[in-house]
Amino acid sequence: MSEAISPGLENVNIKYTELTYIDGINGIMRYRGYDVNELAARSSFEEVSYLMLFGKLPNYDQLNEFKNHVLSNMVLPDYVLSTMKSLPKKSDALAIMQTAFSALSSNENNYQWNKENDKKTSMAILGQALSIVANTYRIKEGLDTVTPEAHGSYAESFLNACFGESDKEKVRAMDAALILYMDHEIPASTTAALVTASTLSDMYSSITSAITALRGPLHGGAAESAFKQFLEIKTPDNVDSWFQKNIIEPRKRLVGFGHRVYRTFDPRLKTFKEYARSLARTQEQKNLLEIATKLENLGVKNFGGKGIYTNTDFYSGLVFNELGFPLYMFTSLFGLSRISGILAHIIEYVETQERLIRPRAIYNGPGSMEYIEIEKR
Amino acid sequence: MSEAISPGLENVNIKYTELTYIDGINGIMRYRGYDVNELAARSSFEEVSYLMLFGKLPNYDQLNEFKNHVLSNMVLPDYVLSTMKSLPKKSDALAIMQTAFSALSSNENNYQWNKENDKKTSMAILGQALSIVANTYRIKEGLDTVTPEAHGSYAESFLNACFGESDKEKVRAMDAALILYMDHEIPASTTAALVTASTLSDMYSSITSAITALRGPLHGGAAESAFKQFLEIKTPDNVDSWFQKNIIEPRKRLVGFGHRVYRTFDPRLKTFKEYARSLARTQEQKNLLEIATKLENLGVKNFGGKGIYTNTDFYSGLVFNELGFPLYMFTSLFGLSRISGILAHIIEYVETQERLIRPRAIYNGPGSMEYIEIEKR
Repeated sequence: MSEAISPGLENVNIKYTELTYIDGINGIMRYRGYDVNELAARSSFEEVSYLMLFGKLPNYDQLNEFKNHVLSNMVLPDYVLSTMKSLPKKSDALAIMQTAFSALSSNENNYQWNKENDKKTSMAILGQALSIVANTYRIKEGLDTVTPEAHGSYAESFLNACFGESDKEKVRAMDAALILYMDHEIPASTTAALVTASTLSDMYSSITSAITALRGPLHGGAAESAFKQFLEIKTPDNVDSWFQKNIIEPRKRLVGFGHRVYRTFDPRLKTFKEYARSLARTQEQKNLLEIATKLENLGVKNFGGKGIYTNTDFYSGLVFNELGFPLYMFTSLFGLSRISGILAHIIEYVETQERLIRPRAIYNGPGSMEYIEIEKR
Repeated sequence: MSEAISPGLENVNIKYTELTYIDGINGIMRYRGYDVNELAARSSFEEVSYLMLFGKLPNYDQLNEFKNHVLSNMVLPDYVLSTMKSLPKKSDALAIMQTAFSALSSNENNYQWNKENDKKTSMAILGQALSIVANTYRIKEGLDTVTPEAHGSYAESFLNACFGESDKEKVRAMDAALILYMDHEIPASTTAALVTASTLSDMYSSITSAITALRGPLHGGAAESAFKQFLEIKTPDNVDSWFQKNIIEPRKRLVGFGHRVYRTFDPRLKTFKEYARSLARTQEQKNLLEIATKLENLGVKNFGGKGIYTNTDFYSGLVFNELGFPLYMFTSLFGLSRISGILAHIIEYVETQERLIRPRAIYNGPGSMEYIEIEKR
């Protein structure tokens, strides 16, 4: 065993994967060989989920069977909805999602991992996830909870469950966002899910575990934080002075810039940027877009030379906002799209490389200590 | 970056620690330098929790202040108790515990990690954990839920909350079990908690994450599985033939034997074995103890030469049973004792080595694939 620690496991390969290929130098990202922007442009969330879970793009029959299975699972048991509603009003959206998945895990005693169960359970989880996230939004907004109805695609059903309506361009953008955020190799949330799955715990508990990590401000919250910057700046005219005062002078990090894996532009950025532009309909949305564009230019000019470029989270918040979601939902939307990827990773791990994850620590504490009775301490 | 994967992270050091020292060759285990069996013999759970969390054994005043804080936190919010009660009757005990902690995390938006908060939150979690685990037992048994009262020590309060009574010897055994299982370096549950905490998510979510891993049959369930063997064997006379037919002939693993870290007897075994003997009061308990003793002798004779010896889980189930707990509670009791250790590990990590945990994967999937329209698939 090595006598050094591996900080953040940064240089450690935890598994093999056929899922996501990332070339951080050239800014390329593919799911099972397919360019992610092409998938986002030409496929639906359910097609790409099928690709990730079952290894290839489906034909019509496979796709319809898959989608029907997924969308027939949108009914949540009463105890899940009542638990979600009973949590404190100020709960963050991911706390509700995490607790709902944990509650669902109570039906999974002695889960048996095998191809058939994993397939069935994955489809159930995708349907339930749609319902959980849509109802999280509805509960936080003080609306009645609903059992979502199947409306065309997964993305369309989701937008309808949230808002009672959708339009074609918004559905396309929702689909693209769900696809682009679906997987990103082994971030902390996927790592947590892998650790849980490696004990042969159940799939719902593995998703619960992933969400606990997604909640952390160093992980899932970036789209929200990037968007908060735009709100704080208020008008395009303020961008220069805000950047000088809040980033350059205090030597702070511009949120939405830089990524441990990329040394160039995040490849997913392109599609998000296009939708951020095409969906900006209100004056406020156009204003935020202009702020973001100016701020990005300043960021690239100042940090690009150091290999620090715009990442996806810089623009995804604009898209989520234009779709009608409040700030507090951004990370849950990220979580919703990531579920397919996490499921694909844990299934791949358990089916092909199963080994209990049990790292070590290097002890650097005191040697043998003599016990002293409490009277003499 | 290395081009090999690290299966199960077996040879990877994820952190430095001053908490637990394990010498797997010589069978030595210490918390911050103190021998665990000595701590189990001479200290209480609250004393050792204080040692783990705050770095040294407390004097009387420190201990009383700590214990009072912990035991004043045993009141659970209504939404936690009602969530626990609403889960399906067949939920396993850890699913209830996991969901209760997840529900509690809904109050932890934007948790700020610092010495003061970490200390306060740790004490709250220890008090709430007692109440959660005791009420899990009560709910599963169809008893009314209770707000536990402070009765002397943590162990005594816990036994009283479960059973409405306790005696001195049982309290000592409960204390010993809580201490011996408190920490064991970096098993999967602690790893999951570290991953979650490394994102600066909150402490309740980190505990939730740990429990999702504890539920896995490869991790937390060993005491239960070992005990099931004794039940299956039924009488001491059956040990030889059962061992031959169920272990030797099918070349199966004897549960409660072998450990990734130890090549000799698990050091914690000694104390558990003593309590398993001294607490065996009924004929059935004495019968199970005799079965275990005979089975252990056979195991050591057959596997000891390969460095596979008895581990703690072989005897801890007998102690839990003698304390009055049904089989389904064994892993929750393990979880209850482990919480102090997990809290100490995540605090140590965040305070001294904070780094987002983000390993990599080695891509071994297809190269660039050409997109084919669904009509042509």
